[in-house]
Amino acid sequence: MSMNNNHVVIMAGGIGSRFWPMSTPEKPKQFIDILGTGKTLLQSTVDRFRNVCPMQNIWVVTALKFKSLVEEQLPELPRSNILLEPCMRNTAPCVAYVAWKIKKKYPEANLVISASDHVVTDVFEFDRVIHAGLDFTASGDHILTLGMRPTRPETGYGYIQVGAEQAGEIQKVVSFKEKPDLETAKTYLESRNFTWNSGIFLWSVRTIEKAFRTYQPKMAELFDSMEAVYYTSEEQRAIDDKFPCCEKISIDYAIMEHAPNIYVFPADFGWSDLGTWGSLHELSRKDEQNNAVIGGQVKLVECDDCIVRIGADRKMVVQGLEGYIVAEQGGVFLICKKTEEQRIKEFSEGM
Amino acid sequence: MSMNNNHVVIMAGGIGSRFWPMSTPEKPKQFIDILGTGKTLLQSTVDRFRNVCPMQNIWVVTALKFKSLVEEQLPELPRSNILLEPCMRNTAPCVAYVAWKIKKKYPEANLVISASDHVVTDVFEFDRVIHAGLDFTASGDHILTLGMRPTRPETGYGYIQVGAEQAGEIQKVVSFKEKPDLETAKTYLESRNFTWNSGIFLWSVRTIEKAFRTYQPKMAELFDSMEAVYYTSEEQRAIDDKFPCCEKISIDYAIMEHAPNIYVFPADFGWSDLGTWGSLHELSRKDEQNNAVIGGQVKLVECDDCIVRIGADRKMVVQGLEGYIVAEQGGVFLICKKTEEQRIKEFSEGM
Repeated sequence: MSMNNNHVVIMAGGIGSRFWPMSTPEKPKQFIDILGTGKTLLQSTVDRFRNVCPMQNIWVVTALKFKSLVEEQLPELPRSNILLEPCMRNTAPCVAYVAWKIKKKYPEANLVISASDHVVTDVFEFDRVIHAGLDFTASGDHILTLGMRPTRPETGYGYIQVGAEQAGEIQKVVSFKEKPDLETAKTYLESRNFTWNSGIFLWSVRTIEKAFRTYQPKMAELFDSMEAVYYTSEEQRAIDDKFPCCEKISIDYAIMEHAPNIYVFPADFGWSDLGTWGSLHELSRKDEQNNAVIGGQVKLVECDDCIVRIGADRKMVVQGLEGYIVAEQGGVFLICKKTEEQRIKEFSEGM
Repeated sequence: MSMNNNHVVIMAGGIGSRFWPMSTPEKPKQFIDILGTGKTLLQSTVDRFRNVCPMQNIWVVTALKFKSLVEEQLPELPRSNILLEPCMRNTAPCVAYVAWKIKKKYPEANLVISASDHVVTDVFEFDRVIHAGLDFTASGDHILTLGMRPTRPETGYGYIQVGAEQAGEIQKVVSFKEKPDLETAKTYLESRNFTWNSGIFLWSVRTIEKAFRTYQPKMAELFDSMEAVYYTSEEQRAIDDKFPCCEKISIDYAIMEHAPNIYVFPADFGWSDLGTWGSLHELSRKDEQNNAVIGGQVKLVECDDCIVRIGADRKMVVQGLEGYIVAEQGGVFLICKKTEEQRIKEFSEGM
């Protein structure tokens, strides 16, 4: 198949409240250089699709208030490839909108759906997996998810149960599992029949259109009704008017749990959803005392198991902390125990 | 006596290394609004002498590199009243220089010598004590120090042993004591015959000149030799040339410990030398958990006995710290245990 049929849809409307103060409602984590690499998570996400399709085939779905951030961070992205959701309706309506729009102009399109705020450390393996996956979805009516081989009994991810070993790398999905408790996560890890659900999906527009018509007929109808306005000056007004009528539902619930033709590609390319400070700590290079430092000039004295992330222009001495998060973004600071990170949203209130 | 004979000498050449990162070699603590009052310590020091003498009679002795900070922070101070020491030679040469200069033009002058980086909370009582002290030094050949009534067995201050109770508030000094250990400090506190040495001195230029001639004849001779250049364009060059020849010695060692006519005015006007973060914590308003917050918007969650001092434009959430200093100045941060504050100079190295 031609590379020109490949399209990448990047969902960049999330608000990342668990990463405060680096992530704020005005500038969520996808727009921040969380890892201190010099690129924001959104920019790194686009970068890793460099060999998958040309920039004209990359679509970013976000909210109006983030439009200028996307434009600023992705200057090479055609402005018309930025799609604006008038409100948050979870992933299914977002996926439907962009699928309906793309299929009008590119009925042969073969899509990858990706979050904008995840991390991949092995980009070469990622590239290989995406290309192999796109070959698979181009060759038949297949819905493909990327499953990450679990390395720990993580309770922060959903899991995918895979079937008996099949030829090739791609396997049939047996079932999707919600975030498990620790005991369940341990049995998943031991059984070797479960992968983490990365939320990266691949399908042709034909396949996903058919799936929506079958399992979400109302939503299909709603986007059918706007067929005439895609790529016209009327599009945004129509979307602003009708998109809010969509049910607030994830693509997992809307499609995955119903369709029979769901496959998983178990892979290992150093993926993290970077959902928590703990996952950032996990992912970062650490010193002998298990401290991770990202950003400015930081001197740690008698510290253990800490993660310090401050702006590149900051300097900091930290003495005598064990198991703490120390974070700064734009003059807003957080110091808290790592064990309390699930309370960060509470801490951030009123700040 | 006329108020116009009163002169105030403010020593503003210190480097305040124990207050890093708020205090830096480029901008030591006297030039910083440490208490978050909107005024720097130097400005507050000048303010509390408002009723003692006119601005033309206030002299600030500092280093060349701090000259522009003094000019900026004290715009009403005549530029010619800023005296520049070419190097740090402790307090005695500084006192001699300014005394010799003042006596050339104002032989009847009656002086107060004060640090620039201390705190006084009861400015009305301070004003009363200074005026009473100046009356005393104007009336005879008396060297007067202000002794602070101790409220705790502080080991960070020198002490002054006072004699048997005499008429009036001013008493004869029996001896000066170095910073004591805790046990000794406790006996001082119990005996009630000791005050803290505030380092605030009062004397007429006649008295201090005579004392220097008697106990520091070489220094007196050195400043005599420059008699012709004070208030001329040659002054700075001569001082730069000769001041470094002075012995590095404090006024306490140079004069106080030798002269017989030394008196102390035990007083209580809420004084602190603000020498440490602990003293700032002591001095600050605290919440029910004994936390003191100065500066920006700070939310403390499950914190006890902490002092947090950040810039007014910063926001911070601190969770789960007990007995810590959290400080910021100009993008440089310190987090350390209060018990380790004597190591701050070490922490600051290389930052």
